[in-house]
Amino acid sequence: MFELRIDNAKYWRDCVESIVNLVDEGSFNIAKEGISLKAMDPSGISMVSFFIPSKAFSKFDIPKNASVGLNLENLNKVLSRTRDNEALVMKDTDNKLLLEFVGKNGKRRYRLPMIDVRKNVEKEPNVEFNAFVDIAGDPLKEIIKDASLMSSYITFKESENQFFISAHGDSGELEEFNENDGEIIKKIKAEKEEGAVFNLEYLESIIKACPIGNQINIALKTNEPLKVTYNIGDATLTYFLAPYMEE
Amino acid sequence: MFELRIDNAKYWRDCVESIVNLVDEGSFNIAKEGISLKAMDPSGISMVSFFIPSKAFSKFDIPKNASVGLNLENLNKVLSRTRDNEALVMKDTDNKLLLEFVGKNGKRRYRLPMIDVRKNVEKEPNVEFNAFVDIAGDPLKEIIKDASLMSSYITFKESENQFFISAHGDSGELEEFNENDGEIIKKIKAEKEEGAVFNLEYLESIIKACPIGNQINIALKTNEPLKVTYNIGDATLTYFLAPYMEE
Amino acid sequence: MFELRIDNAKYWRDCVESIVNLVDEGSFNIAKEGISLKAMDPSGISMVSFFIPSKAFSKFDIPKNASVGLNLENLNKVLSRTRDNEALVMKDTDNKLLLEFVGKNGKRRYRLPMIDVRKNVEKEPNVEFNAFVDIAGDPLKEIIKDASLMSSYITFKESENQFFISAHGDSGELEEFNENDGEIIKKIKAEKEEGAVFNLEYLESIIKACPIGNQINIALKTNEPLKVTYNIGDATLTYFLAPYMEE
Repeated sequence: MFELRIDNAKYWRDCVESIVNLVDEGSFNIAKEGISLKAMDPSGISMVSFFIPSKAFSKFDIPKNASVGLNLENLNKVLSRTRDNEALVMKDTDNKLLLEFVGKNGKRRYRLPMIDVRKNVEKEPNVEFNAFVDIAGDPLKEIIKDASLMSSYITFKESENQFFISAHGDSGELEEFNENDGEIIKKIKAEKEEGAVFNLEYLESIIKACPIGNQINIALKTNEPLKVTYNIGDATLTYFLAPYMEE
Repeated sequence: MFELRIDNAKYWRDCVESIVNLVDEGSFNIAKEGISLKAMDPSGISMVSFFIPSKAFSKFDIPKNASVGLNLENLNKVLSRTRDNEALVMKDTDNKLLLEFVGKNGKRRYRLPMIDVRKNVEKEPNVEFNAFVDIAGDPLKEIIKDASLMSSYITFKESENQFFISAHGDSGELEEFNENDGEIIKKIKAEKEEGAVFNLEYLESIIKACPIGNQINIALKTNEPLKVTYNIGDATLTYFLAPYMEE
Repeated sequence: MFELRIDNAKYWRDCVESIVNLVDEGSFNIAKEGISLKAMDPSGISMVSFFIPSKAFSKFDIPKNASVGLNLENLNKVLSRTRDNEALVMKDTDNKLLLEFVGKNGKRRYRLPMIDVRKNVEKEPNVEFNAFVDIAGDPLKEIIKDASLMSSYITFKESENQFFISAHGDSGELEEFNENDGEIIKKIKAEKEEGAVFNLEYLESIIKACPIGNQINIALKTNEPLKVTYNIGDATLTYFLAPYMEE
């Protein structure tokens, strides 16, 4: 039986949100180094790979490695009820995950049934990326909204020192140029021009949980999956999104 | 013809909200001591008993007792239009209730037709309660939301010094322990353990109008109706809610 | 090819909102004096006449007069994406309107196709008004909401020194008296009593874009169209709304 304690329950809520934005169920693998989860969205065009090191927990007591399959939407609903200044204790008990919120006055215990997750994902796509950009997360969220006005798809194109996005549809076209200015674009590196088209709805789900003020790392290769990485405190989120190939 | 004046129209709006959350029509009985209203919700599983003393009014001029049956949802809509710093004058005129909002600049008059209320409720259920708890209203609202995640029903259980709630459904279970700590639980008194199961939607409607910072008094008896009491300024709200009996 | 630049893109967004609240497409006529647009709503019971002088632009470069027909809802969506402190440059290019938002970091370009507007409106209704009232915009918005509770129509009546509104429906009646007090009513002038009934939904769309703190000028004549005028910065909005004639 494991026992994990995180002093700030809201932080764990934020971590789970970053996963549930894309997938509705998954298995947390609990090992000495920390907790990881890999899952594909139901349509199979995107995946999330989550890792949080054990040091993020004030108690991390695991007699042996464990796998906890959960309906993540139910977990998310429970975590959304977190009050300010509550700690969270998680234990396995009788094939259920016990979540105990410990506040100044009294405590609440939720028990969520563990489930057999339909399919586990072990491997990340193997892409040799040639173009990388570090972009401030908040402006990137705005860019996604700009593009949503025009289309369901967005084109990312990166050259030596410019990150260019475009979208076009019946109502009009959008072009957006972002130079390497140290403000929106923090760092950019591309051996040659790389670009691809992506589904905006998935992209929005992927970057939604990026905390305000944080940076997002994007890796691009022409007509290959996009790789998006950001941190939530000690946790690392890595997402892959398949490109949209116009027929 | 009566004439009532309340200096703070928003206060009367808050009073009416506490009734309309549960019932859509009712009769105000206007007598020397004050105004009262008793009504059952359409399904018959809950009732509200409202009383506001005449001293809450700056003018309370009633030649004789009066009964004013109203569509409370229409009354509520009119009161929702109250501006800051308005007084409210209520008169009966020609089988209509005249509501006159008096502000610094100009005035607004609404006339609402009086109606025959389908059925009047005279008596409150006669229960000898054995367990009582005084609980802060705001945390109780949170507890109701916690439970709503899991089920449409909530179990209240009270023992000598603990108020315990639980809820369970397909997605999981909730247990919440509240000790007599002087913060959430202000006072608790139970001769023996008492408990019952209640419909969450009704409970939510009942406590919704409790002003921020106010206290709610709960009286419990095993498998008997719940009694909930709180104040809105000088007004007293008493609610009864039948227990849910699992078959 | 024209080139217009406005230093505060949000101001142009507010201007376009005042038009799109009523009509979904229209032609901007761009001439030396400024930009104007006249359009009727699809039902034909109201019209808007918009004018903004060229001095509101920091660049107003027009080789010849131009007419730019647009889907105003698409234009409005694009303008809603304006960030703080952005300037807006508008050019015609290849039968499209180019909108370039220029911010501190990078720029965004939208291109919207120009369209043939179904029908152009050249003339404003010719009414000899006899009653005029200058009323503060914010309280007028509240009055419209008061009336919406009771009906889909509102009666405006104006006499020498009173602006009176009323509405009645199944749920009750509203009467509202506004004296010439210098606060809500700024100025009132009527040779004799004038009044008419108007559709509330259209009236709400007409006054919606009036900036907080601004004044609205109303001109009335019994059973003739209402004329509503207000300013958004340097721009002038004039609306006409046909009266509702009960059969």
